[in-house]
Amino acid sequence: MIVVKVGGSEGINYAAVAEDAARLWKEGTRLVLVHGGSAETNRIAEALGHPPRFLEHPGGLTSRLTDRQTLEIFEMVYCGKVNKMLVELLQQRGVNAVGLSGLDGRVLEGPRKKAVKYLENGKLKVRRDTYTGTVERVNTHLLTLLLDHGYLPVLTPPAISYEGEAINTDGDTAAARVAVQLQAEALLLLSNVPGLLRNYPDESSLIPRIPAAEVAAYMTHAEGRMKKKVLGAAQAVQHGVGRVVLGDARVEAPITQALAGRGTVIA
Amino acid sequence: MIVVKVGGSEGINYAAVAEDAARLWKEGTRLVLVHGGSAETNRIAEALGHPPRFLEHPGGLTSRLTDRQTLEIFEMVYCGKVNKMLVELLQQRGVNAVGLSGLDGRVLEGPRKKAVKYLENGKLKVRRDTYTGTVERVNTHLLTLLLDHGYLPVLTPPAISYEGEAINTDGDTAAARVAVQLQAEALLLLSNVPGLLRNYPDESSLIPRIPAAEVAAYMTHAEGRMKKKVLGAAQAVQHGVGRVVLGDARVEAPITQALAGRGTVIA
Repeated sequence: MIVVKVGGSEGINYAAVAEDAARLWKEGTRLVLVHGGSAETNRIAEALGHPPRFLEHPGGLTSRLTDRQTLEIFEMVYCGKVNKMLVELLQQRGVNAVGLSGLDGRVLEGPRKKAVKYLENGKLKVRRDTYTGTVERVNTHLLTLLLDHGYLPVLTPPAISYEGEAINTDGDTAAARVAVQLQAEALLLLSNVPGLLRNYPDESSLIPRIPAAEVAAYMTHAEGRMKKKVLGAAQAVQHGVGRVVLGDARVEAPITQALAGRGTVIA
Repeated sequence: MIVVKVGGSEGINYAAVAEDAARLWKEGTRLVLVHGGSAETNRIAEALGHPPRFLEHPGGLTSRLTDRQTLEIFEMVYCGKVNKMLVELLQQRGVNAVGLSGLDGRVLEGPRKKAVKYLENGKLKVRRDTYTGTVERVNTHLLTLLLDHGYLPVLTPPAISYEGEAINTDGDTAAARVAVQLQAEALLLLSNVPGLLRNYPDESSLIPRIPAAEVAAYMTHAEGRMKKKVLGAAQAVQHGVGRVVLGDARVEAPITQALAGRGTVIA
């Protein structure tokens, strides 16, 4: 079993991901595909006159400010546009894919954040009206049911809160949670960089290997969204996933290349 | 087993549909929910600068002109916004709903139209670049698998062509096909009118009952989208569905009311 997360930044080669996933699937690899959609969400939100806003949190992480209108735009892009595009690409390659959000069958479940702390002009502020949260539980029953009957699950945020609300959640840490719950041999986090770079954005400074116990020491090299990938990777390895590879989704055969160790391997 | 189709026109009471579906589901009714999204698709398409266009076909039926960009907007609204909204409403009422498009698991499959004939200023024209088609096959395996394991399927167009392309398809006739394949006792087609009206839009002119063999005689009363509902209804009854009710989705307990015979009953 492998869990593959494909990011939603510019430059992702979705056709290559689908092609590679289809080949592995037909060879008998059990596979769950997880995806993002952030760049396209930004574009659609702009076009709809509700431009994206991001919050900077204490500690350096950032996240999308997800009010109810943003949540609905998020769902349109992640669940409607990107998810169905990936399902279509897989179906065209003979794979019987089934798209799911975290709401469907409560696949990704967790608490909605009651208060989101963020920094504005150096001051700590709080918002209580956002639809965001973290994944604590994975409905492996539905994923396993589909896999056992020949359906490849294609999974996307949002997740669902314990009260049944759709909540925006980070796709990388959600994928890590899925990999842990399914006890995957490998979790691949593929994006538009070759892996963790010592000097971002210099791609020749790729860090090829990080021992799981030393992840904290490498966090200084993680820029922006890469921080959550490295954190998710460390969590996954600590909870029994064989290895995590931060790999490149812009290339041909991106899954096979990551499985072969191209990228940053955390084990 | 009942199949409930909820339209996508203005005025639909989605919360009442979800509430009623949840009550019936918890009482043990096997249920598949199918939905539309046309009015919201028109709004989003306008907002994105790609306003909707409709084709008038010989015979009087109309359909959305679905080029590739329209198809993607269609997917965003039907699969992303409306589908996830219904799944969320059901989850909040304790029902483990799973949203599916016709692409997912190839639930709704059929041929893509090679040529769409339409009238423009009285002249017959043809377009070959549209993503539209009709549903010929229903993957009852996936629907039954989900139902047997406690998941309520919430199904929406698009369908998938035999070549694996997403295709816009009429939701009413798709729901009729699902009802036939599942040998449903009842198919409910709920929209923003009380049923088939003798003198549209005079709601007091409701036709309460149509014998299936006499549907053709009533087609003159069917306006716009109602034509496809009446055609779908007749097909369903002819192929073994116990009865079809054209009912009102603006009221409280819309499913229960339609099951009780409120609306236009075709049997």
